[in-house]
Amino acid sequence: MPPSERDLILSRRDLEFLLHDWLRVEELTSRERFAEHSRETFDAVLELAADIATERFAPHNKRNDAEEPRFVSTGGVGRAVLHDEVAPALRAAADAGLLAATMDESVGGLQLPHVVGTAVQAWFHAANVGTWAYSMLTVANANLLLAHGTPEQVARWVPDMLAGRVHGTMCLSEPQAGSSLADITTRAEPQPDGSYRLTGTKMWISGGDHELGENIVHLVLAKVPGGPAGVKGISLFLVPKILDGERNGVVLAGLNHKMGYRGTVNTVLSFEGARGELVGAEGRGLAAMFHMMNEARVGVGAGAAALAYTGYLKALDYARTRPQGRPAGAKDPSTPMVPIIRHADVRRMLLAQKAYAEGALALVLYCGRLVDEEEHALLDVLTPIAKSWPSQWGLEANALAIQVHGGYGYTREYDVEQHYRDNRLNPIHEGTHGIQGQDLLGRKVRTPGFAALRTRIEETVARAGERPEAKQLQQSLDRLVEVTETLHAHPDAEERLANASVYLEAAGHIVVAWLWLDQVLALAGREDDLAHGKRAAARYFFRVELPKVDPQLDLLASLDTTSLDTDPAWF
Amino acid sequence: MPPSERDLILSRRDLEFLLHDWLRVEELTSRERFAEHSRETFDAVLELAADIATERFAPHNKRNDAEEPRFVSTGGVGRAVLHDEVAPALRAAADAGLLAATMDESVGGLQLPHVVGTAVQAWFHAANVGTWAYSMLTVANANLLLAHGTPEQVARWVPDMLAGRVHGTMCLSEPQAGSSLADITTRAEPQPDGSYRLTGTKMWISGGDHELGENIVHLVLAKVPGGPAGVKGISLFLVPKILDGERNGVVLAGLNHKMGYRGTVNTVLSFEGARGELVGAEGRGLAAMFHMMNEARVGVGAGAAALAYTGYLKALDYARTRPQGRPAGAKDPSTPMVPIIRHADVRRMLLAQKAYAEGALALVLYCGRLVDEEEHALLDVLTPIAKSWPSQWGLEANALAIQVHGGYGYTREYDVEQHYRDNRLNPIHEGTHGIQGQDLLGRKVRTPGFAALRTRIEETVARAGERPEAKQLQQSLDRLVEVTETLHAHPDAEERLANASVYLEAAGHIVVAWLWLDQVLALAGREDDLAHGKRAAARYFFRVELPKVDPQLDLLASLDTTSLDTDPAWF
Repeated sequence: MPPSERDLILSRRDLEFLLHDWLRVEELTSRERFAEHSRETFDAVLELAADIATERFAPHNKRNDAEEPRFVSTGGVGRAVLHDEVAPALRAAADAGLLAATMDESVGGLQLPHVVGTAVQAWFHAANVGTWAYSMLTVANANLLLAHGTPEQVARWVPDMLAGRVHGTMCLSEPQAGSSLADITTRAEPQPDGSYRLTGTKMWISGGDHELGENIVHLVLAKVPGGPAGVKGISLFLVPKILDGERNGVVLAGLNHKMGYRGTVNTVLSFEGARGELVGAEGRGLAAMFHMMNEARVGVGAGAAALAYTGYLKALDYARTRPQGRPAGAKDPSTPMVPIIRHADVRRMLLAQKAYAEGALALVLYCGRLVDEEEHALLDVLTPIAKSWPSQWGLEANALAIQVHGGYGYTREYDVEQHYRDNRLNPIHEGTHGIQGQDLLGRKVRTPGFAALRTRIEETVARAGERPEAKQLQQSLDRLVEVTETLHAHPDAEERLANASVYLEAAGHIVVAWLWLDQVLALAGREDDLAHGKRAAARYFFRVELPKVDPQLDLLASLDTTSLDTDPAWF
Repeated sequence: MPPSERDLILSRRDLEFLLHDWLRVEELTSRERFAEHSRETFDAVLELAADIATERFAPHNKRNDAEEPRFVSTGGVGRAVLHDEVAPALRAAADAGLLAATMDESVGGLQLPHVVGTAVQAWFHAANVGTWAYSMLTVANANLLLAHGTPEQVARWVPDMLAGRVHGTMCLSEPQAGSSLADITTRAEPQPDGSYRLTGTKMWISGGDHELGENIVHLVLAKVPGGPAGVKGISLFLVPKILDGERNGVVLAGLNHKMGYRGTVNTVLSFEGARGELVGAEGRGLAAMFHMMNEARVGVGAGAAALAYTGYLKALDYARTRPQGRPAGAKDPSTPMVPIIRHADVRRMLLAQKAYAEGALALVLYCGRLVDEEEHALLDVLTPIAKSWPSQWGLEANALAIQVHGGYGYTREYDVEQHYRDNRLNPIHEGTHGIQGQDLLGRKVRTPGFAALRTRIEETVARAGERPEAKQLQQSLDRLVEVTETLHAHPDAEERLANASVYLEAAGHIVVAWLWLDQVLALAGREDDLAHGKRAAARYFFRVELPKVDPQLDLLASLDTTSLDTDPAWF
């Protein structure tokens, strides 16, 4: 039986394994917060998400790419115009209550565990990341207000956001300040009535203009004149597009035209004395934004995992149905061609995709579980990995999905080239790959979360007993710990962090190897196709992927400074 | 002084080093074939190529992407329409004699060495691969006729091709037969006058329709009914689009819309009783086509190297001029921001691009030199590597070029995202990555060329004396040779070739490490920026890249069958 459309978005069988058999989410119902829930309510919400993703989001994914948002000027006022299938899809998700899936019942939420919420999101990411991004941004915006806003700000905006009537953005970057937020120049001038007037240009603002709802709430980083230089002078402001029924001074200055992720309008916004109000305390803007940012980073990883996953399922479907060539050693041209999945090299590419996609999804679901367990120290350490590993290897999975399709994969007739282009954003936004490396090696592994990570990995190793993978994982972990200590003992910050990206990649592979071994342990006694497939992917990961960390750790242990020593004039 | 447009396409300084200091192309003038040439004529042709590439090709590279060829139906006849800058550019290159750069003077060629011809091509590949492809195809087509056509066929078509009045295509694949050419079904029915009538559908035909010249010559693989099954039944036919002043039975059935490489129209052609003539002997069509294919494979590598190179130069330019952040450990926000090239992680990404781009260019130029030396055995072994290594790592270089640009690199305002999309084709066409692995491990390393490769690498090692890189390279080579013997001793063909792609990648890294060491030896005594930069890139390659082969060779030595053992039902 050919797979249904839904079966090419995500695997329900794998989600069921990951959530129930591996992460045992039902146990969370013993916590007071989730006491009203049960396996049945979890599954019902996931089914609902899968339905809406399949029926309302997936059908216009290609259209998002082909008909990207347009800049239209009407009476001298620029606006972004989207095609007509975006708004109804978002409304369907909001009407089903899915935007507020993990939020408190007191604000109208379903109060689901984050791990379930992450799985809900994965359906939308995989079906149509360009459309879903509008909801993602709005939810992140609402979460930030819930954490840092006044009760009045929450009451005024959050219910409308969760109902899909109002959308949200995050305005951080400026043309001259992307990764370096300390250098933003947008000014917020205090007004006699306690409000502020904001002036400056914000860059890379996703969802910065559209007519999907009644209003857009911009959360804007800006500096109050006279404040301290750098990050301590940054405050956070709430600036609605429409204020008291009139246009606020937020002008759409232009659209950025991207390689992928085209469904999500990306804008340059000019704040021209726009009226805003402070969120949180003056000078605490970046801290508040990072509260949201950490969540957004795991969200980026979840999106990358989901794109890897749907690409893998489509490559698998193609490989099972496309006849081409004959097995090595069976060259009689009069025999029929075999489906390409019969070729070892195609199976190698499928196993790699499976190892990356299922490994990445496991990682972000595990992070969701840590939110529910309130294991913040461990979550903090895993966040740069949960952001960067799925972004790097999910993209590689999509490259392999193209490769399995051959020439067809390179055409826009098939889906996989779009997934690849969409996924290429993920190592860039919400902190580049390099920034994640600095965060992990420069900060996170110096926190107690690193010991917590080590403890959890060793628990899995202990449970794995005599399996050779257990020994291999323990050796890699010991090596990582040793290298971490060597680096931290090194006095020069530039030299210590010169290969932080390599450290990030090695740590990521060790973490995902751990989660693969942990999944295998959860399969004990099972002999069905899922169990065999998981074991094969784990074997692939331990044989082909984990050994890649050895030369990386050698390089780090040698305190290599090849890059640092290269004078810019020599290039 | 900011770099000129030309300096962002290729580095003249590096080409001068590679051709003159490293490959000593002037020595070729001692050969009778090149006796009329000198360093001055080589340099003059390269300057001419650089001029035309910069002035006529590069300016419409982005337009090729944004305004891809259109299918237009006029009076029921489909045709492909290109924008108006393609034809004049191609004419300028043809008028300058560059299409015939390496061909015999007797057919109007410049009789330049192939190594110089490869450098000429690199300018056009880097400037605008989409437009240059029309010339590339035509030249390959002409070369095939020169090798296998009758004197009449050569006289009738080749001069018009080299003058740019007639273009050419290669019609191999069919919708049901891509990698598996034995399974083509296009029929060629012999006619009483000695001609043939061809019927069938050809897929992925680049340049299959356009109005760039007066005619298009299709070289078509087809089977004469009653012949043997498989490749022995395949013959090669010359089928002009226009015959005796009238349209032949070659119908444009549709266009393929690609992720990149959009300037080159890619077509589905329907042969409906089209008149053609045999080229070479009946049943020898695939052999003739492979004569061209080997050249085309190195050409793919050259194109991938050139795209990597121009992407690197643009990332370098961006990194030198974009201020962002401060060095690690110098966080005073009131100090000015530094150009991002000051950051170790950015320099790491630039060094990697330099190692890939210059390594790939060195590899394909080296292959050109082997053509000139008539070292066919070694060339045959290097061909799958020269095709696949630049395709794989050139793409990675382009991914890093995007990453250096941050969010800007993801937009179509900058060039690098297009280079990345264009380059993604290269691991697919002219034999996929997997096919190259099968070719290398299944055939090529069993030929005398493998010993020749070993000898050449060991000559370099011997000349490198006590350098640690020499020892490292020798160890990797010994390991490769040992693994090759282990694999060849294994009786099961499927198991032997199960990880042929991994073998290809390991062998490629060892070959490129060798060429880096060899370049370093050619720099002895030099202390200029170029020499320092080359040494830094070589150091990077030996420290970061070459160690990646160790786990690959471990996997191969273990005769790992993880992929083969994975039942298709388990995915």
